[in-house]
Parts: sequence; structure tokens; C-alpha cells
Amino acid sequence: MQRKNLSEMPCPVARTLERVGEWWTILILRDSFHGLTRFEQFQKSLGIAPNMLTRRLNALEKDGLLARRRYNERPPRYEYVLTAQGRDFYPVLVALFAYGNRHYAPEGIMSRIVDATTGKPADPILVDRASGKPIDEAGFGFAAGPAATDAVHRRMAYAKAARQPR
Amino acid sequence: MQRKNLSEMPCPVARTLERVGEWWTILILRDSFHGLTRFEQFQKSLGIAPNMLTRRLNALEKDGLLARRRYNERPPRYEYVLTAQGRDFYPVLVALFAYGNRHYAPEGIMSRIVDATTGKPADPILVDRASGKPIDEAGFGFAAGPAATDAVHRRMAYAKAARQPR
Repeated sequence: MQRKNLSEMPCPVARTLERVGEWWTILILRDSFHGLTRFEQFQKSLGIAPNMLTRRLNALEKDGLLARRRYNERPPRYEYVLTAQGRDFYPVLVALFAYGNRHYAPEGIMSRIVDATTGKPADPILVDRASGKPIDEAGFGFAAGPAATDAVHRRMAYAKAARQPR
Repeated sequence: MQRKNLSEMPCPVARTLERVGEWWTILILRDSFHGLTRFEQFQKSLGIAPNMLTRRLNALEKDGLLARRRYNERPPRYEYVLTAQGRDFYPVLVALFAYGNRHYAPEGIMSRIVDATTGKPADPILVDRASGKPIDEAGFGFAAGPAATDAVHRRMAYAKAARQPR
């Protein structure tokens, strides 16, 4: 399917989706956070075709989210572990977890994120690190950053106009 | 392309991706939070083919994230606004924003989320609502929920075994 190259868009969401915006990629990252590292483990967990899994793992390595590590010399065998950049994806995954459990778990909660010490289910909310303010639509908004191009400024102005009551 | 139906997986991440795990869908939601509501606005913003946009908007309406509202009688014209369920997607988007700005903005920050009152850029972190504890990998983990099936329990046990040092 032909599609735009999202990484050319200035939006950080679009650029992230260009790298990880695919079901399998995000599920591989989920499994990585869950502790899986080996090709066979991912394959067993996801039921994904080997060639597709190879492609996804290679892309995640190339994009710097996973690092390949040899764990056996003969025959050579590799495992895939999260890099620091890969670990930074954790909040996205937790937010997806919370959203899914809230809206797509009609039969009840099957899996969730819990406090490792108390075992209590987490109820994740986003707050601003400095102020501690919960990040919601009422208190926060989109704005152009210091490196914004004219196109970004135009885009912001366009959205602002679209938000005006008609 | 043939693929598994992710919504049959018990994982809340997989089920969410089944509904919104597509670049265009997430970018439409981003634009919705930005204030866009009309077909032409989304089209202009995304440069997406009209048939693709129609398909995505219909899917978002069907899945309950957007509601269609008539804003003109003759000719009939509709706009698409976020539902309460759609608004719940906000933390995922904010987490994607933060991740993208951290890793895919080599020329500097072009757009970001700011405190609406102070204008200061937000630095979003996830915390547990009840305890206020930052949600990170050290302090939190995956666990089976009350509706977990045997398959989910097996999966948890499998991941636990995979995490053991070898």
C-alpha cells in the first residue's frame, strides 16, 4: 500500500508512528517489557510468521529500540533486549494497557499492571513532572516549539481557528 | 495482507491496537484533540486520500471514539467530535508526543504540549493515581487480572520463566 512517509512530518507523534506504529512492533515491545528476548519466545507469544518477525526485530534494532546480543557462540544465537531508548517507550505501553482495559475488556480484566511491592493494580495517570499537575485537555494544549518551521506555525494557527465556536 | 485478529487476544494492548493501531487513525485522533472536526480539515491536515479518510472516520465512529454530528442541513454536512471514550485516548497521545520529541526531533522541538496557564512545556510522567508513585519498570509489573483465563496464566508463567537469569 502506498503511503506518506510519516517521518517527514514535523509532528513527534507522526515520527514515532513511522518507527513503531505497527501492531507487531508494539506487541514485540510489550513482550520485551514482559521479559522475552529470544526469537522463539516472540514467535511463540505472538504467533507471527518468522519472516515478519525477523523484519520487525531488525527494524527495532535499526531504530535503536532493541539491541541484539549474542548468547550462544556455536551455533551463533542472538537475543534482543531493550535499549535505553526502547525503555522510554514504557509510558506509551502503559497508557495503551490502561485504555484497553477500560474499553476493550468486556469479560473483565485479564492482565494489568500492578505495583510490584503491594500487588495493587495501578491506575496510571499522566502528570507534569515539575508541577505535578495532571495532564488533561483542560489544563494543557499543543503549542509550537523553538524549532517550529513556518509550516508548523501555520498548522497551529489553522487548528486554533478551527477550534473557534461557529 | 493476512494477519491475526488481535482483538481475539486477551491482552488489552492488542485489543486497543486492533481498533486504533494504524498511523492514520492515531493521527486523526491527534487532530481531533487539536480541535479539527470536519472532513476537509482532516484531509488538509493529513494529506490523506478521501476514501481512506472516510474509512478511518467510519471505523472510529463505529468503535465509539468519534461521534458524527450534523452541522448543516442542506446539504447535509457532518463533523466528527471526540466521545468520552475517544477523550480517554489522550494519555496515549501525550505519551507518544513525549517519546517522539525525545527521540525523533533531531532539529529541535517543533511542537509540544504546554501548560495552558503558564505556557511551560509539560514533561509528562505516569504515576499511580492512588499512591502517586511514578510508574516505571522497577516498581511495577504485569500480572494476571480477575478474569484471566488459563491461557493468560500460562503466558504469565512463561514470561516469568523467560525472565529468570540463565
